[in-house]
Amino acid sequence: MTTSSRKLDHIRICLDNPVESEGVVARSFDDLVLVHKALPEIDEADIDTSCRFLGRKLSAPLMISAMTGGHPSVKEINVNLALAASELGIAMGVGSQRAALEEESLKDTFSAVRDAAPDIPIIGNIGAVQLKRSGPGILDQLAEMIDADAIAVHLNFLQESIQPEGDRDASGVVKVLGEAANGSVPIIVKETGAGISRETAASLADVGVKMIDVSGQGGLSWAGVETYRAAEIGDCDLEEMGRLFWSWGIPTPVSIVECRSIGLDVISSGGIRSGLDVAKSLSLGASLAGTALPMLKPATKDAKAVVRAMSPYLRALRICMFLTGCRRAGELKGVPLVVLGRTREWLGARGYDLNEFSAYRELTK
Amino acid sequence: MTTSSRKLDHIRICLDNPVESEGVVARSFDDLVLVHKALPEIDEADIDTSCRFLGRKLSAPLMISAMTGGHPSVKEINVNLALAASELGIAMGVGSQRAALEEESLKDTFSAVRDAAPDIPIIGNIGAVQLKRSGPGILDQLAEMIDADAIAVHLNFLQESIQPEGDRDASGVVKVLGEAANGSVPIIVKETGAGISRETAASLADVGVKMIDVSGQGGLSWAGVETYRAAEIGDCDLEEMGRLFWSWGIPTPVSIVECRSIGLDVISSGGIRSGLDVAKSLSLGASLAGTALPMLKPATKDAKAVVRAMSPYLRALRICMFLTGCRRAGELKGVPLVVLGRTREWLGARGYDLNEFSAYRELTK
Amino acid sequence: MTTSSRKLDHIRICLDNPVESEGVVARSFDDLVLVHKALPEIDEADIDTSCRFLGRKLSAPLMISAMTGGHPSVKEINVNLALAASELGIAMGVGSQRAALEEESLKDTFSAVRDAAPDIPIIGNIGAVQLKRSGPGILDQLAEMIDADAIAVHLNFLQESIQPEGDRDASGVVKVLGEAANGSVPIIVKETGAGISRETAASLADVGVKMIDVSGQGGLSWAGVETYRAAEIGDCDLEEMGRLFWSWGIPTPVSIVECRSIGLDVISSGGIRSGLDVAKSLSLGASLAGTALPMLKPATKDAKAVVRAMSPYLRALRICMFLTGCRRAGELKGVPLVVLGRTREWLGARGYDLNEFSAYRELTK
Amino acid sequence: MTTSSRKLDHIRICLDNPVESEGVVARSFDDLVLVHKALPEIDEADIDTSCRFLGRKLSAPLMISAMTGGHPSVKEINVNLALAASELGIAMGVGSQRAALEEESLKDTFSAVRDAAPDIPIIGNIGAVQLKRSGPGILDQLAEMIDADAIAVHLNFLQESIQPEGDRDASGVVKVLGEAANGSVPIIVKETGAGISRETAASLADVGVKMIDVSGQGGLSWAGVETYRAAEIGDCDLEEMGRLFWSWGIPTPVSIVECRSIGLDVISSGGIRSGLDVAKSLSLGASLAGTALPMLKPATKDAKAVVRAMSPYLRALRICMFLTGCRRAGELKGVPLVVLGRTREWLGARGYDLNEFSAYRELTK
Ligand SMILES: Cc1cc2nc3c(=O)[nH]c(=O)nc-3n(C[C@H](O)[C@H](O)[C@H](O)COP(=O)(O)O)c2cc1C
Ligand SMILES: Cc1cc2nc3c(=O)[nH]c(=O)nc-3n(C[C@H](O)[C@H](O)[C@H](O)COP(=O)(O)O)c2cc1C
Ligand SMILES: Cc1cc2nc3c(=O)[nH]c(=O)nc-3n(C[C@H](O)[C@H](O)[C@H](O)COP(=O)(O)O)c2cc1C
Ligand SMILES: Cc1cc2nc3c(=O)[nH]c(=O)nc-3n(C[C@H](O)[C@H](O)[C@H](O)COP(=O)(O)O)c2cc1C
Repeated sequence: MTTSSRKLDHIRICLDNPVESEGVVARSFDDLVLVHKALPEIDEADIDTSCRFLGRKLSAPLMISAMTGGHPSVKEINVNLALAASELGIAMGVGSQRAALEEESLKDTFSAVRDAAPDIPIIGNIGAVQLKRSGPGILDQLAEMIDADAIAVHLNFLQESIQPEGDRDASGVVKVLGEAANGSVPIIVKETGAGISRETAASLADVGVKMIDVSGQGGLSWAGVETYRAAEIGDCDLEEMGRLFWSWGIPTPVSIVECRSIGLDVISSGGIRSGLDVAKSLSLGASLAGTALPMLKPATKDAKAVVRAMSPYLRALRICMFLTGCRRAGELKGVPLVVLGRTREWLGARGYDLNEFSAYRELTK
Repeated sequence: MTTSSRKLDHIRICLDNPVESEGVVARSFDDLVLVHKALPEIDEADIDTSCRFLGRKLSAPLMISAMTGGHPSVKEINVNLALAASELGIAMGVGSQRAALEEESLKDTFSAVRDAAPDIPIIGNIGAVQLKRSGPGILDQLAEMIDADAIAVHLNFLQESIQPEGDRDASGVVKVLGEAANGSVPIIVKETGAGISRETAASLADVGVKMIDVSGQGGLSWAGVETYRAAEIGDCDLEEMGRLFWSWGIPTPVSIVECRSIGLDVISSGGIRSGLDVAKSLSLGASLAGTALPMLKPATKDAKAVVRAMSPYLRALRICMFLTGCRRAGELKGVPLVVLGRTREWLGARGYDLNEFSAYRELTK
Repeated sequence: MTTSSRKLDHIRICLDNPVESEGVVARSFDDLVLVHKALPEIDEADIDTSCRFLGRKLSAPLMISAMTGGHPSVKEINVNLALAASELGIAMGVGSQRAALEEESLKDTFSAVRDAAPDIPIIGNIGAVQLKRSGPGILDQLAEMIDADAIAVHLNFLQESIQPEGDRDASGVVKVLGEAANGSVPIIVKETGAGISRETAASLADVGVKMIDVSGQGGLSWAGVETYRAAEIGDCDLEEMGRLFWSWGIPTPVSIVECRSIGLDVISSGGIRSGLDVAKSLSLGASLAGTALPMLKPATKDAKAVVRAMSPYLRALRICMFLTGCRRAGELKGVPLVVLGRTREWLGARGYDLNEFSAYRELTK
Repeated sequence: MTTSSRKLDHIRICLDNPVESEGVVARSFDDLVLVHKALPEIDEADIDTSCRFLGRKLSAPLMISAMTGGHPSVKEINVNLALAASELGIAMGVGSQRAALEEESLKDTFSAVRDAAPDIPIIGNIGAVQLKRSGPGILDQLAEMIDADAIAVHLNFLQESIQPEGDRDASGVVKVLGEAANGSVPIIVKETGAGISRETAASLADVGVKMIDVSGQGGLSWAGVETYRAAEIGDCDLEEMGRLFWSWGIPTPVSIVECRSIGLDVISSGGIRSGLDVAKSLSLGASLAGTALPMLKPATKDAKAVVRAMSPYLRALRICMFLTGCRRAGELKGVPLVVLGRTREWLGARGYDLNEFSAYRELTK
């Protein structure tokens, strides 16, 4: 099975089935509450959600996370996402460019993104294992293909574990990422739905990685997607594995806190389902938040549908900023945030003092 | 759309739909338990629930919170509430008087309240933004209109955020409230369903505000009401925002604790649904508790219906006082109160020692 | 309405309706777990559940709690309970003897108990308010009526609060109980379903009371019973009060810990529904456990039915003792007991270190 | 009723009914989360799940726990289990060999196991009470019967308590186990579904026992099985006892932590339902994990069915190892494990610092 046709399967499955994580911490973002500021003391009109990201300006700290490319029939999806991202002034990631490396003719399914969105940050994408195989030199090629502002190197060993054709040699990846981090193309190390722990973040920081896209547990589950695929091909054993590991991973909010505690720049993703989740992510210390799955179906229609699906994120983020008195998105990390329930238990178990977010912040002003 | 007709929409929606908050802390009052005193050592007949409020005597620390006025057809609602409040000897707030400032002929929809209830404390009402626009001078005018004992300046930036015509310039409001607080008319700073945090309370205390009506999360949700209104006018985007922010805010019990910790006088409101909630509020340190939504439907009938709806609050408060051995309402703040569940987590996260309420109180006697 | 006919109402309501408490701590006993001892190191045949109570021997630390008497038609209930208690060798309390004081002819509905059960401890019963009215002298009279080993003076101010004819003068009761405690008849101060707090226990200990029957929240709810009665007589206001206070009170396990911490002898009751609850009660420090409601229906049949309903309590207690390695019932207070959930929160909030029960016990052996 | 026919009853009941524990901690393993390691830094192909157990090599730290033998008609079950265990290279325990001691002709229902599986560790089985009765000398006989690598001496006093014919003399068992532990045949002290506490583990360590099979609460419930049997023979009293004690016991994860804290070698069993539970067990410090009930039905079919049911355990364990970066099974005890919910409460109540598992581990590397 080619990379390209597997990608089509994934998209079809994501469009037709419930593929989100559940697990012991069902909706970790629902355990977080931004503390209402009855007197915001700002004019909502003065709120400026814009920020800089990878040297470009964004209208808001938002991105459409990596999804696709690499098959003629998905080019349109990518173009719709790009047109929408461009119109909204937010960043966009493309899906793994591996297929285009394998097959020249597929390049334009990626490059069309830059054509449709000349001014926004566009982030290329490649799997860590592929990078290891091809060597860091490949990064320039990937960047050039879409005039990328950075390349996300994705980690998806959970998915590889459930795939029949999974590549499970994870050895030496940290070293390669270190080489890549010191190359000319900015890189982002990105999970794909299972999150990044403090320990992993520390080892990445050690080799020079600066930015992480946590893509934590709580949104799309690759184990979930592969469960359907295994069922389709009649591989009961893999199907059972898929079910077992469906919700494996570190909830996105937990992962944000863990990576931030190492001092890394963090993109929040994995289950970002509204501007409220975006605001909570920023309050936990993320610089940006991305969402993937909810944009997929709209993108199969047209750019307008994507804009319609994404606009509420911007609006809700703005409302959150207003109701917590933040003129700039960056101020969200200074507003009190209450952490409850199992997310509280989890972070407590990992040694964090949750009052840091909810009680001490006002003291340090 | 005029202020006045919008008010009618609100009332209609509140009468016909579920408009209460749910959220991560569903019924925060249910997390609180007054510790039973098997030997009250008082004669129930000696219980005196009366208290003084704004220089007048109340039969109990209770009020009907601000709801209406400003449209000919709601005058009757106000009169029924006032007659009932007067008969019961409790306080009453009127709805925002803004419409009457805009349109002279609407004044009597407010002033009728004082006519119907000559002896109880009546609290005028105006939005903080309106106050900022008109200047503190307006407070005398408002007070005079209904011979008010105080004016509640309400904060409703959550609602403004969901309203198409919302006024979202919240800048400089604290300063204006400071000026108002130092004027001749006593003022109460009042939320409208999202609660007031310790930080906000502190900034109010700084400028001289003495009394706060927390109106916390847990009862009427303005985001909820505006969700219905948005749906009616076909504004899907706002409707989505309304749903997202439906339960935004600080639960009433949390807000009481936070504002009390700043040393302010506190009125408890937002989800007060029985005399038990009143007693718990007083035990947390509030001086008075108000309820709005449950009185609306009865008030569309007659004063008797309002009396019938409100009387159980007084009776249950009395039973709570009896079963905790309190002769005076003020003694409730000295009886042990156990705080459980998510409310416990929340207050803990905000740095409060919950044992203060449940364990230390007996030690300090 | 006479005391006697009211009693009949109560019994009828208890037989026909769900009258148990629910509340924020639904089944507090379910939050407790006795730690299994895989190697009991005893012969089950050597287990001796017997104990002494009020100078007599019991086959197990169990009693049938006070329920009835005072009406010709309930004499049989009392006789059946007594025959069963006698056969099983456990203690029994009679219901309030007030009716028999008012009406000589009703005496034998109580005295028949002693006739049927000559050797077991029988506990008389009178309300605290009644005792205050009649003076402690009455205790001898009550004891004599049934040749009682002790008199339970019951506290039921929750019930009085929901009864139309409720007597709510609770003043001076502690003093009277002090006088009674120093009289010739041993007394037990007993709640009736709402529990006794540490503060109340302390004030009782101060005046010389030595034994408490906690009768906590979790079993029969008198507010519940009175709710039905209020509905029957069409008193909607009282009915509403009944509903509101249905689950008011201190959960039985919490009350046991609180009263024990004052050093009093404790009988556990209120929601004791199996020998497991009995064992947990003893582990928390109670000397005896009583159950009422589950014996009512069997008692309307015959003594055999009561024996059948009560025997499993003894058997399960024995199994608990075996599986925790206790030869004597008194040893249960030394076995580890894990406290979880809201009961853990509650006791923590009241200042107790729960590890006392679950972790330290082995250290002190 | 003979030992042998009772065994048949048990198997039939286990095949036809839900017999698993529920209780206050429903699925304790679901309270545990292995922390995802996005960068495992190992090649999955290098993972070696093998380990040594009782001097033999296993392909993975897994066993089929003791179930049967002792009746002609179950010989096939045992053979199927043995063939499967042999094929998979995992250990296997046989059911209690008591019947074969009583009746020579039944021996081959056990010895057939070794015939079918010449190279794997096979563990004999006898009840502690039986051992006490027959004396430690019997161990050699049992070992010889199946060429056993060790004998599991099982503790099942919960079951004995619910059996009509139960043997409930548990006195002196520790001493006998001490003698056995110092004999020539290695012994494992094993519960049968109710777990082993720290206190019990300590008394076993004191007399020289080195290895424990916790068989904790969470899987098969013997009280449950006996409930059905009691119902079948119409013994309502026992049936009621069975229901009451259905979920009695210490959850498997808790029991692992408790026994490990005494320094004993631990086999995890009781509710092991996937390789995830195996991995969590190893992370808590167990050396091996066993499962019984899920293998019963497949074993009534053929060896292939057992292999099919067991293989996913190995595969999932491997995935867990991969996703936590463990090349060897023994490394799992060094990876972070988050403990949540009631299991967290329970272990906290027993004095354990849960951060030991989730936060400190990285520090000690
Ligand atoms: C159809 C689909 C394809 C994806 N392909 C990629 C990919 O090629 N590279 C990658 O890094 N992430 C990929 N992802 C993961 C997303 O970028 C994102 O991390 C993940 O879906 C979690 O976010 P969500 O819950 O908002 O969907 C894909 C997601 C989807 C739904
Ligand atoms: C129909 C309606 C109109 C209201 N109008 C006002 C108002 O004009 N000014 C104000 O301060 N609060 C207003 N409120 C808010 C209430 O005073 C109160 O703070 C809020 O409803 C929460 O209390 P509750 O849960 O008991 O309803 C209104 C509430 C309702 C239901
Ligand atoms: C029908 C009935 C009558 C009762 N009458 C009395 C009484 O006269 N005096 C008393 O102290 N308690 C009385 N009680 C309360 C019980 O003694 C006991 O404290 C209470 O029912 C809680 O225990 P339970 O949950 O096992 O029923 C009565 C209970 C019932 C069900
Ligand atoms: C049918 C059956 C028979 C069993 N017989 C024995 C036995 O003879 N000896 C023993 O130590 N355990 C016996 N067990 C208990 C198991 O070894 C195991 O400890 C228990 O079932 C818990 O594990 P599980 O939840 O994976 O089934 C038996 C279990 C089953 C299901």
